[in-house]
Amino acid sequence: MYIRTTKFIAHFSSLYVMLVQGKPFRTIWFDQRYSDRFYIIDQRQLPHSLEIATIKDVDTAVQAIGEMWVRGAPLIGATAAWGMYLAASQIPARCDSQFWFEEAYSKLLRARPTAFNLKWALDRMLEVLRHARDPDEAALIARRMAAHITEEDVQINASIGEHGLNLIKDIYERVQRPVNILTHCNAGWLATVDWGTATAPIYKAKAEGIPVHVYVDETRPRNQGAALTTWELMNMDVPCTLITDNAGGHLMQKGKVDIVITGTDRVDRNGNVCNKIGTYLKALAAKHQGVPFYVALPTGTIDWSMDNAFKDLTIEERGEEEILFIQGKMKGKIAQVQIAPDGTKAENPAFDVTPADLVTGLITERGICAATFEGMSNLYPEIGQDER
Amino acid sequence: MYIRTTKFIAHFSSLYVMLVQGKPFRTIWFDQRYSDRFYIIDQRQLPHSLEIATIKDVDTAVQAIGEMWVRGAPLIGATAAWGMYLAASQIPARCDSQFWFEEAYSKLLRARPTAFNLKWALDRMLEVLRHARDPDEAALIARRMAAHITEEDVQINASIGEHGLNLIKDIYERVQRPVNILTHCNAGWLATVDWGTATAPIYKAKAEGIPVHVYVDETRPRNQGAALTTWELMNMDVPCTLITDNAGGHLMQKGKVDIVITGTDRVDRNGNVCNKIGTYLKALAAKHQGVPFYVALPTGTIDWSMDNAFKDLTIEERGEEEILFIQGKMKGKIAQVQIAPDGTKAENPAFDVTPADLVTGLITERGICAATFEGMSNLYPEIGQDER
Repeated sequence: MYIRTTKFIAHFSSLYVMLVQGKPFRTIWFDQRYSDRFYIIDQRQLPHSLEIATIKDVDTAVQAIGEMWVRGAPLIGATAAWGMYLAASQIPARCDSQFWFEEAYSKLLRARPTAFNLKWALDRMLEVLRHARDPDEAALIARRMAAHITEEDVQINASIGEHGLNLIKDIYERVQRPVNILTHCNAGWLATVDWGTATAPIYKAKAEGIPVHVYVDETRPRNQGAALTTWELMNMDVPCTLITDNAGGHLMQKGKVDIVITGTDRVDRNGNVCNKIGTYLKALAAKHQGVPFYVALPTGTIDWSMDNAFKDLTIEERGEEEILFIQGKMKGKIAQVQIAPDGTKAENPAFDVTPADLVTGLITERGICAATFEGMSNLYPEIGQDER
Repeated sequence: MYIRTTKFIAHFSSLYVMLVQGKPFRTIWFDQRYSDRFYIIDQRQLPHSLEIATIKDVDTAVQAIGEMWVRGAPLIGATAAWGMYLAASQIPARCDSQFWFEEAYSKLLRARPTAFNLKWALDRMLEVLRHARDPDEAALIARRMAAHITEEDVQINASIGEHGLNLIKDIYERVQRPVNILTHCNAGWLATVDWGTATAPIYKAKAEGIPVHVYVDETRPRNQGAALTTWELMNMDVPCTLITDNAGGHLMQKGKVDIVITGTDRVDRNGNVCNKIGTYLKALAAKHQGVPFYVALPTGTIDWSMDNAFKDLTIEERGEEEILFIQGKMKGKIAQVQIAPDGTKAENPAFDVTPADLVTGLITERGICAATFEGMSNLYPEIGQDER
């Protein structure tokens, strides 16, 4: 069930960091007063309209992930976790609860194939739910774990921000003018619960008074850069300039980019980075022009079980209508225009893989490391020998 | 003066090669019966509507070039030549004719700064007009030269097609399946008078019965790939697939591209290639993935006087509205939608420069050569010692 509203039901805590029109906001929240639902921003309507969707069952959570009402690996993980909470609080009588949880798990997992955080969050939910002795306990356990995953994401991103801030600070001390950062897609707070991954260092820099300016790739076909990243940066009062996906290489040639920071949907154990289609092209240009290329990510994004994303990862192919039609605002309303002739065929791979050797470093909540197995496992010594 | 019509006034010759809905067509033509005008396709309305513009004075020709009713380096050259013809046939009484020609020359030259064919065509017009002894002779000389430049473009492109065909044939003999060609922007017949530059080898291959398939970059911000290249390929019955500008690198990684062929607006004497923004990124990916990267061009595109396009060429910066608004078809009409939040700033460099060492070869009307001074001057021995 999906209730659309533009009234904001949630109680906004001053702990919320990101602002919309000056008010603290998050992408997803749970309100203790209404235990049968959680809330998300329906990002399909942004930047032209801020709409809140109320999610009341697991199928709607699946739909919200699959149809990209929410997107961004960490936010997909949090949404799946709250989806599992709804499943746990709605166990049908005469249904084996573990069977029910596993059904919800697999429906949610199939909603988006690439984001590794999705599996990571679902695994954590399923693991704690194994210990539930009755439906009430299941609901309680699931709520606590979903809340934990949500709050943990905020903490992780804040830490990513602190580590990434040092990179920006170093550049600023060297150049003594606003630091120009290029980013692709939206790895901002809209892709997480709060702060963002790639944007966390930018917001931290802004808070420290370091002048920054962000070049935002529009990120065809879904224009997350044009629609979301500009929107959240402008709401946070960070100077930014929208560019086409074609322009980044030229701007780097001209010395107009000091650092590239992107997010990622999955990093394999050897540091190859799967991210929004087009990331690979920016990494190539950064390497060619000597511009540092960093990827910001939480722990959950590293897939220690995947050796080689080029071989082992199936890239999600999305519908051709995402390319053939473009959504925007016309006379105050959301409208779509068709950009190609009738009958045009299109191919729409949603992600690409950037080889580890094009990546200057990974910015994680535990620090910055090389995009190599060694670099990552130095930060994650708890990764068991069997996984090595 | 600009008359808009969808009735086709021209007499279409069977010498015209390209087809629109099965009928031979050109992008620009002169009709002997009406010596006060020439005709162009107004490409801003494509692919949704085929409209013909009638150009009756030099200022309208300037507008047609500047506002991109026509685009593509060779077609800009031909349009400027016919614009000079109109100037030559409309010398005001009491005006020095050479002064008048030079005025028209400089207005037309300023209309688009990057396309070198523009200057090349204008120089040729001005040169012959120096010898005109009276207004009647000026009009006659100008008409002959404009017609010559137009017909020459067709012949040049046909030759480019023959040379490029050999590359495609070689690949086909090796792979024995349809040859996958990636192209950026529109260097098709719509960018020239007939045949196109980058597309000429494709149309020649099609005519020879070699199966080809074209990946078309949509080419933001103006979407010439999505709107024009798909349209002309589909009209010529060439299988094609539209992709975002972000996708080419990934497709090359996956072995789905056998060769890249683009056009160019200017090549410096050392083989650096100025072309539509984003070309550089595709050249990087092609190099990284070992995919041959060719650039198709007529003689007039080589700027022997320019040493280093990275330093010496001013890249045209176009308006931000080209990024912020996207045009397409909605309910049968042309409409625009706004893709970014109100108040978003955008930066819109129209071209980039691809370093010569990323270019496998140049396909010219005289053959294929390396993108080096030596390679090009072997094909153009008439380039004077002083220019070397």
